[in-house]
Amino acid sequence: MQYVSVPWDFINDFVMDVFRCYGIPEEDAKICADVLLESDRRGIESHGLNRLKPIYLDRIKGKIQSPVTNFEVVKEGPTTAVVDGHDGMGQVIGAKSMRLAIDKAKKYGLGMVAATNSTHYGIAGYYATMASKDGCIGITGTNARPSIAPTFGIDNMLGTNPLTFGIPSDEPFDFVLDCATSIVQRGTIEAWARSGLPTPAGTVISDDGSSMTDSDEILTALVEGTAALLPLGGIGEELAGYKGFGYATVIEILCSALQGGNFMKGLTGIGADGEKCKFHLGHFFIAINVEAFIPLDKFKKTTGDILRALRNSRKAPGHDRIYTAGEKEYLAWLERKESGVPVNEGVQRELIAIRDDLGLNRYRFPFER
Amino acid sequence: MQYVSVPWDFINDFVMDVFRCYGIPEEDAKICADVLLESDRRGIESHGLNRLKPIYLDRIKGKIQSPVTNFEVVKEGPTTAVVDGHDGMGQVIGAKSMRLAIDKAKKYGLGMVAATNSTHYGIAGYYATMASKDGCIGITGTNARPSIAPTFGIDNMLGTNPLTFGIPSDEPFDFVLDCATSIVQRGTIEAWARSGLPTPAGTVISDDGSSMTDSDEILTALVEGTAALLPLGGIGEELAGYKGFGYATVIEILCSALQGGNFMKGLTGIGADGEKCKFHLGHFFIAINVEAFIPLDKFKKTTGDILRALRNSRKAPGHDRIYTAGEKEYLAWLERKESGVPVNEGVQRELIAIRDDLGLNRYRFPFER
Repeated sequence: MQYVSVPWDFINDFVMDVFRCYGIPEEDAKICADVLLESDRRGIESHGLNRLKPIYLDRIKGKIQSPVTNFEVVKEGPTTAVVDGHDGMGQVIGAKSMRLAIDKAKKYGLGMVAATNSTHYGIAGYYATMASKDGCIGITGTNARPSIAPTFGIDNMLGTNPLTFGIPSDEPFDFVLDCATSIVQRGTIEAWARSGLPTPAGTVISDDGSSMTDSDEILTALVEGTAALLPLGGIGEELAGYKGFGYATVIEILCSALQGGNFMKGLTGIGADGEKCKFHLGHFFIAINVEAFIPLDKFKKTTGDILRALRNSRKAPGHDRIYTAGEKEYLAWLERKESGVPVNEGVQRELIAIRDDLGLNRYRFPFER
Repeated sequence: MQYVSVPWDFINDFVMDVFRCYGIPEEDAKICADVLLESDRRGIESHGLNRLKPIYLDRIKGKIQSPVTNFEVVKEGPTTAVVDGHDGMGQVIGAKSMRLAIDKAKKYGLGMVAATNSTHYGIAGYYATMASKDGCIGITGTNARPSIAPTFGIDNMLGTNPLTFGIPSDEPFDFVLDCATSIVQRGTIEAWARSGLPTPAGTVISDDGSSMTDSDEILTALVEGTAALLPLGGIGEELAGYKGFGYATVIEILCSALQGGNFMKGLTGIGADGEKCKFHLGHFFIAINVEAFIPLDKFKKTTGDILRALRNSRKAPGHDRIYTAGEKEYLAWLERKESGVPVNEGVQRELIAIRDDLGLNRYRFPFER
């Protein structure tokens, strides 16, 4: 696949303009563009520009989500809040929720916000990093369309439900563990299918109980409901799949039971008559103010010492490097900081079509002849 | 192995008396006995009576931990506290810390306590359940002797570091996910070795990078430092071992960086000259007051609905039941509630020896002729 890099300022301006054209107010468009492109900055291609059209623009156009975000705090205590996002932009709901949690943590030591009636909020790590950059430990999770099967089950019941942590360190990058509680996500399987690669055995279960590996077949089966993703730890209990299943369940609960929101099969985005409908996703955001426990620099030093010791420990034969969470994303940023965001051919076509459709003719992409 | 059941009241009195004889004050002995036997009540044999002698009595005798617990709050805010356990009883430090976190949560919505200079605190699920029984979501973790290798590494660097959640539900048992961030623990491998069973491939890594399966060889290699446990997700990155590695790292950080305590190779319990020394473990305890977000009964109903839907979903061929976290432990309790705690032969011998050593002659065990 032919990638062409686009300068960061250019693409940010473009995405901002596109979001504004879709009715997102200036300040909110800034947040949405920042969350979207932060994914590309970290090298997480699955959640970046490739999602601009299918996940955000198409859903706004289809009235599945609203470009204007009515962020309503429906219940509030000194350290807690429940917010209703009224199906606005998930990124705006996410950023405002984590901001509220951080503000509460700065005042009382801890803060937690539970959001309901939200939409896809992009990379969970964005919100965890908001906290870690502000001297807090950030924890966040979101529910999602059902796709993980329970241990000993075959139905896709739970979302890929990330359980995400951001922790301040004294290194150039924070510890950011941003991962689904499934082994792989649909986006990864799509990438394998595009490259003609099989999916590793033990990551997807067919409804006959066997492990599937043909990436194309898997994608079809996932849609038809005849396959499901396996939780972290894999099939059955031998390699402790019940742990990943358990963590996915924790996230499902924290994203719906605290907010009185939808869960599992209520999050398919498909109505009773097969029509597309609102997702009504839920998220949670926790901020822990480090200074309430210990001076921040001391905390950062210990965290850094732990990470350095891990990286400096003995390598397995055939490996010359151990990575800690957030490191690969930082390396991706260093690599593309100057050159810009690498855009694949499919996304190049989408960006041109969006530009033409909106008549944003002042943008001429480097990949256009 | 021949198990003989001992009535719960009888064994509780005995353990209480033993702890008192070792210098643990009455109130603290009650907590220590309750934590220890709660493990047996839940069917978690690895953390119950079998640990009375080697983990608690021997360490008190060896002055590795103190029977008297000086629970000192060294820093406190409205929702947070740092406590120093001065190498007292981990169960007492744990129970008092979670109590403090819950009290803060009841007042402000959230509470978090970071403990340092502690000792083995038993099953993490005990403290999570303290919270869930009191209308809170409980989260706790502890560091431990290094045993998990990082992804692409072979050194045992991280403890088995449980990340444990307790969540109220409307069922007879709460959702309690009490598990290590490794795939298996040493205690499980010991059980396999006793039964002459191999350890499943992909759970232990040798320092030549291969997966070990001979349970006896593994136990020796773990002590010699030529093998390490693998994180949840297994070897390398194919099945996302970096996620389990990441969660184990989160726990290592939350149990030391917030408290300014020891971590990783500082927790071996072995001094510079090979002598046994204090562990100085760290833990953290988080309580989230559900009522700060939503009425408790509504929350419990949603949680229960999620758990019931998971259990009622389609089973994989060859399986007729899906379990949610805490269910197997509840079933174990139902099974042994009337009959008492099943005690294996090795522990039978230990209990008799402890009794004789302390001259607690009024106790005559059912397994004695």
